[in-house]
Amino acid sequence: LLKKLVNVSFNHKLARLRADKASVLCVGLDPDPAKLPAHLLSRFSVSGAVEAFCAEIVEATAPFAVAFKINFAFFEALGDHGLETMRSVLKGIPKDVLTIADAKRGDIGNSARFYASSVFEDLKFDSITLSPYMGKDSITPFLTYSGTCSFILARTSNPGGNDFQMLEVNGEPLYKHVAKTVVDWSLDTEGTAGLVVGATDTDSMANLRSSLPNTPFLIPGVGSQGGSAKDVMAASGNGPVLINSSRAIIYADASPDFAACAAEQAAKTQIELGI
Amino acid sequence: LLKKLVNVSFNHKLARLRADKASVLCVGLDPDPAKLPAHLLSRFSVSGAVEAFCAEIVEATAPFAVAFKINFAFFEALGDHGLETMRSVLKGIPKDVLTIADAKRGDIGNSARFYASSVFEDLKFDSITLSPYMGKDSITPFLTYSGTCSFILARTSNPGGNDFQMLEVNGEPLYKHVAKTVVDWSLDTEGTAGLVVGATDTDSMANLRSSLPNTPFLIPGVGSQGGSAKDVMAASGNGPVLINSSRAIIYADASPDFAACAAEQAAKTQIELGI
Repeated sequence: LLKKLVNVSFNHKLARLRADKASVLCVGLDPDPAKLPAHLLSRFSVSGAVEAFCAEIVEATAPFAVAFKINFAFFEALGDHGLETMRSVLKGIPKDVLTIADAKRGDIGNSARFYASSVFEDLKFDSITLSPYMGKDSITPFLTYSGTCSFILARTSNPGGNDFQMLEVNGEPLYKHVAKTVVDWSLDTEGTAGLVVGATDTDSMANLRSSLPNTPFLIPGVGSQGGSAKDVMAASGNGPVLINSSRAIIYADASPDFAACAAEQAAKTQIELGI
Repeated sequence: LLKKLVNVSFNHKLARLRADKASVLCVGLDPDPAKLPAHLLSRFSVSGAVEAFCAEIVEATAPFAVAFKINFAFFEALGDHGLETMRSVLKGIPKDVLTIADAKRGDIGNSARFYASSVFEDLKFDSITLSPYMGKDSITPFLTYSGTCSFILARTSNPGGNDFQMLEVNGEPLYKHVAKTVVDWSLDTEGTAGLVVGATDTDSMANLRSSLPNTPFLIPGVGSQGGSAKDVMAASGNGPVLINSSRAIIYADASPDFAACAAEQAAKTQIELGI
């Protein structure tokens, strides 16, 4: 059975999870020590508090989620304890839920191979986020891994997302040119190319979906960043999606009941998705 | 004295080093286990061999170099030993030589602050490489650190560097628009914005230098990737530069004499720079 699962495409896994759980929710783990519940910080070291916080959030929200996205910035900031804390969090994620390494890698082919080996072979993530600026040889080493997905930044939800992504090239916005180009690079690969498409610009999302009906979109920006789950589901059409919410779920409450509150918020978001 | 040094700009440090050492050479540490000398691999664990290799390379080449660039991909690939190995290598770099975290970070402001704290506060690098695709809020958190430099990818030397960077926007190539925009973001900041400009396209380099005379350029691609030191020095004009060579120096030889051979190659490159 395991051997069989390895040969299943990322899109297939996503479709099966969507059907089984009636969800496309991805819970983003961005554990900022300044926002952790006080009772954890008083009881543990900072990395211990991050570990306990993530473990409880994962356990409580997993029934409503099909994926967890781990933001590398917050784990690297833990210094010497970062990697072991990440490994512990990964271990607590149920096997039937997908994992995303939110690392936004992007380097020349020689270096990209080492990043890919670390994320897919050592840490065994199901997918990763990548930056497109350095072009094809910075992306293709990740696409060689069967069953994985490489979500490449196309149209991001942050304020700076407008600075370069909306520039016009050959009569279309840069983000659209990037999106079509990177999807073309994955036509013959074992792994899948997906796109990061922010929830805050549903026009761009609908525009991309019309030309890329089967490309998985990782959609951040629902919740704290202001995107509405309902609008996003409409704009992303019937194509494969993962809709990420981080802060609105994981920081729903800072009391000792934080995990139950996060679960309540995750359940609410799942219902808003209307699957 | 230390307090005073903290307030010295990156460009000033670079100019002083250039004058003191008659060099702008940066040695890139990309330790690929498959290319390490056999005697180290047989004597140590993989991470131990990487540590010993880098320590000898640093000691032997430091007289000819003004900077060392640490490629994060190769250290992350060491798994649980990656960070301690990097710390050990950093510790061996003489205090009068600059350090570059070649990490190519690029994430929303909230995450960028954590990456910046890790690289500048915990690891105490002098500079970092960044990817521009996510725009201003992904860059400015790094620019708040006084005396540091954030080298932002503009025109890279790898084959994929042509895929997006050469696209025409508003009548000029994207890399040029990116370069001018990011330098504008640093006009009021404590830290400096620099640019990554590959050695393999000296036309683009001269083009950029003509409009950005005082911006530090980190120039990879000399040596193994084919750029000539002499042509690069001509194209980069009189502006601040760091010229990086990785593989041509560190893998000059794989015998037990590898460090002496690396030093010889570094000395040769320094002479070719003609300072």
